[in-house]
Amino acid sequence: MAMGLQSDAGTDLAHPDLAHTNLAAAERAAGDGESPAALIASLQQRLHQVRQHSVGLIEPLQPEDLCLQGMADASPPKWHLGHTSWFFETFLLTPHLAGWQGADQRWGYLFNSYYDAVGARHPRPQRGLLTRPPIEAVLAWRQRIDQGLEELLSQLEQQSLAQAQPLLDLLELGIQHEQQHQELLLMDLLDGFSRNPLEPIYRSDPDGPEASYEAASRLAAGSARLEGWRSFEGGLVTIGHGGGDPGFHFDNEAPRHRQWLERFELATTLVSNAELEAFIADGGYQRPELWMSEGWATVQQRHWQAPRYWRGASEFSLAGLQPRQPQAPVRHLSWFEADAFARWAGARLPSEAEWEHANRIEAMPQAFAMLWQWTASPYRPYPGFTPAAGAVGEYNGKFMSSQFVLRGSAHLTPAGHARLTYRNFFPPASRWLAAGLRLAR
Amino acid sequence: MAMGLQSDAGTDLAHPDLAHTNLAAAERAAGDGESPAALIASLQQRLHQVRQHSVGLIEPLQPEDLCLQGMADASPPKWHLGHTSWFFETFLLTPHLAGWQGADQRWGYLFNSYYDAVGARHPRPQRGLLTRPPIEAVLAWRQRIDQGLEELLSQLEQQSLAQAQPLLDLLELGIQHEQQHQELLLMDLLDGFSRNPLEPIYRSDPDGPEASYEAASRLAAGSARLEGWRSFEGGLVTIGHGGGDPGFHFDNEAPRHRQWLERFELATTLVSNAELEAFIADGGYQRPELWMSEGWATVQQRHWQAPRYWRGASEFSLAGLQPRQPQAPVRHLSWFEADAFARWAGARLPSEAEWEHANRIEAMPQAFAMLWQWTASPYRPYPGFTPAAGAVGEYNGKFMSSQFVLRGSAHLTPAGHARLTYRNFFPPASRWLAAGLRLAR
Amino acid sequence: MAMGLQSDAGTDLAHPDLAHTNLAAAERAAGDGESPAALIASLQQRLHQVRQHSVGLIEPLQPEDLCLQGMADASPPKWHLGHTSWFFETFLLTPHLAGWQGADQRWGYLFNSYYDAVGARHPRPQRGLLTRPPIEAVLAWRQRIDQGLEELLSQLEQQSLAQAQPLLDLLELGIQHEQQHQELLLMDLLDGFSRNPLEPIYRSDPDGPEASYEAASRLAAGSARLEGWRSFEGGLVTIGHGGGDPGFHFDNEAPRHRQWLERFELATTLVSNAELEAFIADGGYQRPELWMSEGWATVQQRHWQAPRYWRGASEFSLAGLQPRQPQAPVRHLSWFEADAFARWAGARLPSEAEWEHANRIEAMPQAFAMLWQWTASPYRPYPGFTPAAGAVGEYNGKFMSSQFVLRGSAHLTPAGHARLTYRNFFPPASRWLAAGLRLAR
Amino acid sequence: MAMGLQSDAGTDLAHPDLAHTNLAAAERAAGDGESPAALIASLQQRLHQVRQHSVGLIEPLQPEDLCLQGMADASPPKWHLGHTSWFFETFLLTPHLAGWQGADQRWGYLFNSYYDAVGARHPRPQRGLLTRPPIEAVLAWRQRIDQGLEELLSQLEQQSLAQAQPLLDLLELGIQHEQQHQELLLMDLLDGFSRNPLEPIYRSDPDGPEASYEAASRLAAGSARLEGWRSFEGGLVTIGHGGGDPGFHFDNEAPRHRQWLERFELATTLVSNAELEAFIADGGYQRPELWMSEGWATVQQRHWQAPRYWRGASEFSLAGLQPRQPQAPVRHLSWFEADAFARWAGARLPSEAEWEHANRIEAMPQAFAMLWQWTASPYRPYPGFTPAAGAVGEYNGKFMSSQFVLRGSAHLTPAGHARLTYRNFFPPASRWLAAGLRLAR
Repeated sequence: MAMGLQSDAGTDLAHPDLAHTNLAAAERAAGDGESPAALIASLQQRLHQVRQHSVGLIEPLQPEDLCLQGMADASPPKWHLGHTSWFFETFLLTPHLAGWQGADQRWGYLFNSYYDAVGARHPRPQRGLLTRPPIEAVLAWRQRIDQGLEELLSQLEQQSLAQAQPLLDLLELGIQHEQQHQELLLMDLLDGFSRNPLEPIYRSDPDGPEASYEAASRLAAGSARLEGWRSFEGGLVTIGHGGGDPGFHFDNEAPRHRQWLERFELATTLVSNAELEAFIADGGYQRPELWMSEGWATVQQRHWQAPRYWRGASEFSLAGLQPRQPQAPVRHLSWFEADAFARWAGARLPSEAEWEHANRIEAMPQAFAMLWQWTASPYRPYPGFTPAAGAVGEYNGKFMSSQFVLRGSAHLTPAGHARLTYRNFFPPASRWLAAGLRLAR
Repeated sequence: MAMGLQSDAGTDLAHPDLAHTNLAAAERAAGDGESPAALIASLQQRLHQVRQHSVGLIEPLQPEDLCLQGMADASPPKWHLGHTSWFFETFLLTPHLAGWQGADQRWGYLFNSYYDAVGARHPRPQRGLLTRPPIEAVLAWRQRIDQGLEELLSQLEQQSLAQAQPLLDLLELGIQHEQQHQELLLMDLLDGFSRNPLEPIYRSDPDGPEASYEAASRLAAGSARLEGWRSFEGGLVTIGHGGGDPGFHFDNEAPRHRQWLERFELATTLVSNAELEAFIADGGYQRPELWMSEGWATVQQRHWQAPRYWRGASEFSLAGLQPRQPQAPVRHLSWFEADAFARWAGARLPSEAEWEHANRIEAMPQAFAMLWQWTASPYRPYPGFTPAAGAVGEYNGKFMSSQFVLRGSAHLTPAGHARLTYRNFFPPASRWLAAGLRLAR
Repeated sequence: MAMGLQSDAGTDLAHPDLAHTNLAAAERAAGDGESPAALIASLQQRLHQVRQHSVGLIEPLQPEDLCLQGMADASPPKWHLGHTSWFFETFLLTPHLAGWQGADQRWGYLFNSYYDAVGARHPRPQRGLLTRPPIEAVLAWRQRIDQGLEELLSQLEQQSLAQAQPLLDLLELGIQHEQQHQELLLMDLLDGFSRNPLEPIYRSDPDGPEASYEAASRLAAGSARLEGWRSFEGGLVTIGHGGGDPGFHFDNEAPRHRQWLERFELATTLVSNAELEAFIADGGYQRPELWMSEGWATVQQRHWQAPRYWRGASEFSLAGLQPRQPQAPVRHLSWFEADAFARWAGARLPSEAEWEHANRIEAMPQAFAMLWQWTASPYRPYPGFTPAAGAVGEYNGKFMSSQFVLRGSAHLTPAGHARLTYRNFFPPASRWLAAGLRLAR
Repeated sequence: MAMGLQSDAGTDLAHPDLAHTNLAAAERAAGDGESPAALIASLQQRLHQVRQHSVGLIEPLQPEDLCLQGMADASPPKWHLGHTSWFFETFLLTPHLAGWQGADQRWGYLFNSYYDAVGARHPRPQRGLLTRPPIEAVLAWRQRIDQGLEELLSQLEQQSLAQAQPLLDLLELGIQHEQQHQELLLMDLLDGFSRNPLEPIYRSDPDGPEASYEAASRLAAGSARLEGWRSFEGGLVTIGHGGGDPGFHFDNEAPRHRQWLERFELATTLVSNAELEAFIADGGYQRPELWMSEGWATVQQRHWQAPRYWRGASEFSLAGLQPRQPQAPVRHLSWFEADAFARWAGARLPSEAEWEHANRIEAMPQAFAMLWQWTASPYRPYPGFTPAAGAVGEYNGKFMSSQFVLRGSAHLTPAGHARLTYRNFFPPASRWLAAGLRLAR
């Protein structure tokens, strides 16, 4: 997997609101023969922060919540904590740290997510049944792994950068992987809580995940300049993450390549709750002509009548049941709904190339830290795509059918994790992720 | 519902090994116009013991275990604790204790099991998702209910026995109901734990549920006199619980009625693990001619090859994975397996009338406190059966199709809960209950 | 299998309305050492009639109808014609007629219904896909088989009755088997036609199956004497088919045995359409307290609101859509519906022993040739039941779980096929058979 | 819908092997104000041929075959004949021919495929149950419709070309639609026959569909020049059907638009049976790393071990079971299998733009009349795509999710139906269509 070691520096200049650690300087300083000490120091710091953050996410929970799995697509909080540890143990400690004593061998079976190359695994729909190992054991394992990684890093300091780079790459991947699971943990939890008639609250305090969504929504609503469309010339544009670019990227973001775009326009804001309400009022969920055939079948089968978490005039969220703000971006709708809404609005979804190109030219409002934005693009490999070598090659490459790409990032996305070239992907009927939409035409 | 107030005194003479509280004297002493004080005192004591026992059952658990639901048929431990409380609140406190402040109304929806007359309810397969209310809230509710029941009982002391009797009957039903859930809790837990590759242990100490099974098995194995068959003449026999009999009974055990039995023989012991192994060795699970058609379809669809919890030469139990004792009674097999085994052995299952009649005449070894024993009898109403009035009429009467009767009781059954006329019932493919079999011919 | 060779003579005296061929005299004449010529002559005649009748059943059909299979439980007409031939070939010709050249071996796979001992078979739900062999080939095979059976019978004439009897028994079984499939063919066809929006008509002429139902219904409606109840003393009664009784019986009707009955009453008529309409008008399909729990789940899952073929004020039948006659017996309802109706009516279903005993004492109106009558009795073996030896032992014995017994016979039942001891059986949710109900109390 | 009236003239020059009727001259001659007589004459001729051809397809069948529906995705032959007639009646005769008496209104329900705008419809998985209307009625309806279309055309001759054009466009669409169903009828029939253990033969004569596949395969195998790869420069290319281009096209082929292609190579031949055998021998169906995750799940769930119709060393086909020719192009595999094979071969599937561009530059061997060729392209709208107005807008536009594009045409495709810009599409797990693959790199 061709990836750099630094954080998402590449997107920072365009998006100063994104938290990040700019390691470009460290990277430039470190030649191939030199010691990777500075780089390792930086990684150590981020590793520590990210690992701590995961544990912090379960603090507001009751013990029983730790095994909550609302559906087969979701995983319980404890499983996320275990799986992210398993990733480090499996790909870094066991093969590369001499004398490492791994966890009970059966844990490998329990916490493998989908890596066929690593071996058999516990069936995904039954992760909620894993009441054991208890949380204390999982947290203790996490600490052991943190120590193991410290030790591994101190050994790598003795090597040249060229020698150390493959493992540092894997470590960076592990950090990014854990950040992805931080977001998954929260969206899975929301799904699980939504199935409880008591409508539990995760966090409703000013530092909780909902507060940031509400603040951003208020900001957006108050800002008259956001309305309208921006025009882009198109032409032969370049998208994707280039091999020499600074900052980490997943293998599916590469290679950078050319694509032809016709002139297009992008909406400056995401579609709002009020606009989706107008769609509903106009019979949007009852008019087959607005929908893909597959989507219409889903609407009827699952009795969809509104976005996933709408309840009357309220919306269920990680802060519990809350009044729905008309100007806030609509969220938790599927690609099918986003596509149908766009058709109803006389517009369309942007392609991922349009989205990326537009944001390269001019940082669009609400591009990041608000909601993932469904695109019109099926998730497929870029021309010349090569999956990473080894088992981690299963990370992204094997999901390239029957899914659609989302761009940007959400209020649930950990700070510093997003970037311009990021390709998120989900099946078109998925609604539990923090997704909204931006129109194109 | 015609039921007395006392405990299972009726079975005590025949089965001195059964724990009980003989209230027959109190009952006889209490005329209609007299105070029910003695009776209430006795009920209070049993209520207290039973309610305490339920809470004690979750002591060995980890917090995450409280929401473990391994399959749609089973329920999580916390749900059992909540539902048994709901029963008292719904049928006793809310309608009969002036000023009673019930729990959050939504709890009624969460903890109703199957009472259509009471209202809508949370879907059974999703009980495991109820991580809230947290256990502390459920336990606090239990305490409030215990206090409410105390208060209600003290009010009933002021009434005549005739006035008080309907509510005392309901209270007795609530106690019996909670005892049933104590057994369900354990068998559901075993099912849930069996799905965890870590093979968790509930209790392996000398006072745990497995210890009593092992002790009884050892006793049985060492007792040469148990081998063989006992003959019974049959004729026009009487079975069922009579209106005037002492001791509690469920509505489905009445009325006492006549039935014609031909001469028959019953095995003195339950079928053992070793005998079931011989069945397997003889191709029992591969020979369709031994099975009901419906059972054979189940064998193939679910890939049955042995009783539910057998694993190699071991058996998974509430004490974890344990070596299987050849002489111990085989358990956790379905009616289909019991029926096929009996056919293979050139015998048959006894009818429930045969079972009850035989045990009336002569207490058969291993009849109680070992394993429930599948009978050849579909679960149907006795001639003249009338379900209890009101919502509690749904308790037993509506399950009288597509199930088979089991007789006796199991090592998981709470002491004092079993009796000669008890009719347990489960669908023929069920394997998670503590069931074995006794042959007839 | 203990069965006589003659037709259902035993029931004829009590039910002079049943068509029959009285072979009792022939049977009495034929001693063990004598020639079976008279018996064979009689069998030949019935065989010929029954085989011809089957072919006649498809005359009103379009060619495409021959493969119509409306659901997994049903079979296409052509399959019934093939399977009944397969039965004779498999159990009589192949093993017992020297030099017999069977059909293409693959046909055995196609036309085996459920005999595990005979070998693998085509999946039942896919019988409708067997557009080949074409009907001409199946009919030609039937003729070959008829010739083979003629030849076999002429060989048997050379033997003593004792020698010939086992094969004559099998031949009788094949005849009875084919008669059962004649009824199945019609009820399966009705199911299939009911799924076609064009509402096809099978036969609406005066000799069609509907005409006899309508005539019997009119007769019943006009007969004031039919109303009311008949009382029976009960006591120790004898039911079942005895070994020495004249007339054929299936193995599941034996042995004759004693049973204790309390005093009971039976309704003189079957429940009518008008009565079922009153049940519906009183919310019968919306009131869970009237239903078995399993039945109520079925009502909701399948959206039952009336008997299977009711459409507004009409009823779909083999004569197409017809106005529903209020006084005609209600039909095509499940055991669950029959049981719920009886509960609503303050009555119950009779046990099969009550039904048989009552009809032994006094031929009840509408007992035969009208509708099968659901009983309260689960389908289980009689005490001392032994299935027939060999593969035909699978005929009845392996279905003795999760089904209920029906007694009597229907207007679709071939003349001469019914008798007092006949035990029909279907699962409690089945509605496509010609079933009604008679109340007891 | 922007489409011309003529046949697929555009592709003819490049592909002289494709049967066609070149109407380009007629089109050029016909100005807007002139009579459409020549055009109508040509349409009449093609309409007649195509309608006749459909009826000819069922000649080799047995009557029972007419309702054969092997799976929910497929339709019975009679249904195809009915539906193609329904199309003409619904979109042309009923709205545009004064006095037209349509079929029984219920037929509209029976023969609507998926047009929500037209109304409700018979459930697709139950088309096989429509044994009525009988084939005679369907064929008689076809004739009536042919006459009605003749009459409509004769009325249109009185109009100017500009006036007549919309209806002539619809008529052309109806012809193309019927041709598509001719291919569907054959592939659905193959699916249905494949489920019959008798392995029926549709046609094995020299003019049958298999003969053309075999002839083309032999030709390909004998032609040494076909081996190898062809290189293409790529760059900014133009694909799709342009508004002014001659010849019919579906709405999804437009508009013509620009796309950027990097340099690429295409294999000159389709992948052969022998190559697929090598894939299998190398464990291709057991190695998850070769598959999309969704494909691997399908492999395991459906137990795929070879292309759909492979049986040992043979292949089931419309000519029955035939020895498999190693050099013949492999067929009846899913996109998942095509994708996995390409990965195993160190290559990839071509994008549809690559396929079309390459064939514009140089007619590739085996591009047409052999097998549809899976591409790497999800089926999505071209930039600027507008579905046809009215109900026929549902024809293509609503299927643009979760499917992949196939290019070229198959031996089952009617002569004259294919063209360079044709976009066929199926879900990635589909195997019953006549699909193969061509590698790219």
